[in-house]
Amino acid sequence: MLQKTNRTTLVEQVALQIQTLIESGQWAVGARIPAEPELVAELGVSRNTVREAVRALVHAGLLATKQGDGTYVCSASILGVVLQRRIKQSSLLETLELRDALEQEAARLAAIRRTQEDMDAMLLHLDTCDKAVLEGNIVSYAQADIQLHQTIVEATHNSLFIDLYEHMTDALRTSVESVAEMKTHSNFYQQIHRELVEAIIEQDSAKATGAVHKYIELSREGLHSS
Amino acid sequence: MLQKTNRTTLVEQVALQIQTLIESGQWAVGARIPAEPELVAELGVSRNTVREAVRALVHAGLLATKQGDGTYVCSASILGVVLQRRIKQSSLLETLELRDALEQEAARLAAIRRTQEDMDAMLLHLDTCDKAVLEGNIVSYAQADIQLHQTIVEATHNSLFIDLYEHMTDALRTSVESVAEMKTHSNFYQQIHRELVEAIIEQDSAKATGAVHKYIELSREGLHSS
Repeated sequence: MLQKTNRTTLVEQVALQIQTLIESGQWAVGARIPAEPELVAELGVSRNTVREAVRALVHAGLLATKQGDGTYVCSASILGVVLQRRIKQSSLLETLELRDALEQEAARLAAIRRTQEDMDAMLLHLDTCDKAVLEGNIVSYAQADIQLHQTIVEATHNSLFIDLYEHMTDALRTSVESVAEMKTHSNFYQQIHRELVEAIIEQDSAKATGAVHKYIELSREGLHSS
Repeated sequence: MLQKTNRTTLVEQVALQIQTLIESGQWAVGARIPAEPELVAELGVSRNTVREAVRALVHAGLLATKQGDGTYVCSASILGVVLQRRIKQSSLLETLELRDALEQEAARLAAIRRTQEDMDAMLLHLDTCDKAVLEGNIVSYAQADIQLHQTIVEATHNSLFIDLYEHMTDALRTSVESVAEMKTHSNFYQQIHRELVEAIIEQDSAKATGAVHKYIELSREGLHSS
């Protein structure tokens, strides 16, 4: 019984070690992890311990085993995996309401705390959005749009917001793209985006949260009419 | 190689089955799960498969093995485990800002969607808070306070909000209790709580989010002065 407990702890230790390598980015998403014999040699534990630790991380959604082709990193963090799974079970309206909550408070805090670097990045992504609208390029619009919103969240300098929002990005991409498809709306969205960035630069929190609320309302209308 | 993949899948299937039993509440937090031989018989898989599935769930934080005393359910959901771990790494200010985001939007949505049942529950918890203030009972105040806020979040009828908020409760308890300790503030808090519940009942969204912002600001001041 004692031995069993020790072994569980060992598997757990190895799993945590590998998890740290992934979450710190040393093992990047998409990379194939070292083969079992290499891990056994590096970690100084048995083949079975390595195998079970890897299985625990497959269950956690960080690793995926491709038949006959080794094991790959498929997500950068457990928080991301779990949040994305939960968001996938939600309706677009529920997700939009969560975006509303996070983005309004993020805009308010960004207006207080933004640095010169934050402002430069916002203006850059705003211009890229403009260009994508002119070119009618929905994919590049959606990408620049997400980067703009992420930059605003980063300007909160609140790591909890940054993490939660980053891990929602994949789920958000779907809702942003579906909105970007309503081409007639893009110009109006861009107007609100510009208003939002200006408010943050002017450190006008009320105007910033007002702008967020405007584009969320616009998305909400889009949901109802689609 | 093929066999190995099949076995991984089997471990994964068993782990998911057990996870579902826990997340649906059939296996409650604190309960000891059936012993290995029982699980082997019930699930019709090998002892090793059961053992590995259980280890994966220990790693995920849903189960804990007590030496010589079996395995217990220690958390009701993986989302909860992961969110709580992340919040524990955050400062009280970061957590407070996340509460602000969720609670303001929750108050706004609750004001729109609250049912009679929601209102009855809010008024009940509000009265319990009042009583606890009169008695100077900090623990029972903190508990009723959290229940009041949860009831407001439930009145959004947005399951994503409800889940995220529920899983933050443990992390919030610390921040609420530290606030409740500032006894001089309790009366003022209660005044704002009452204003919030009234606003939701009157379906006045602006007044509701304003009340949330007031008590969050008060907590923020408490943080800075403590």
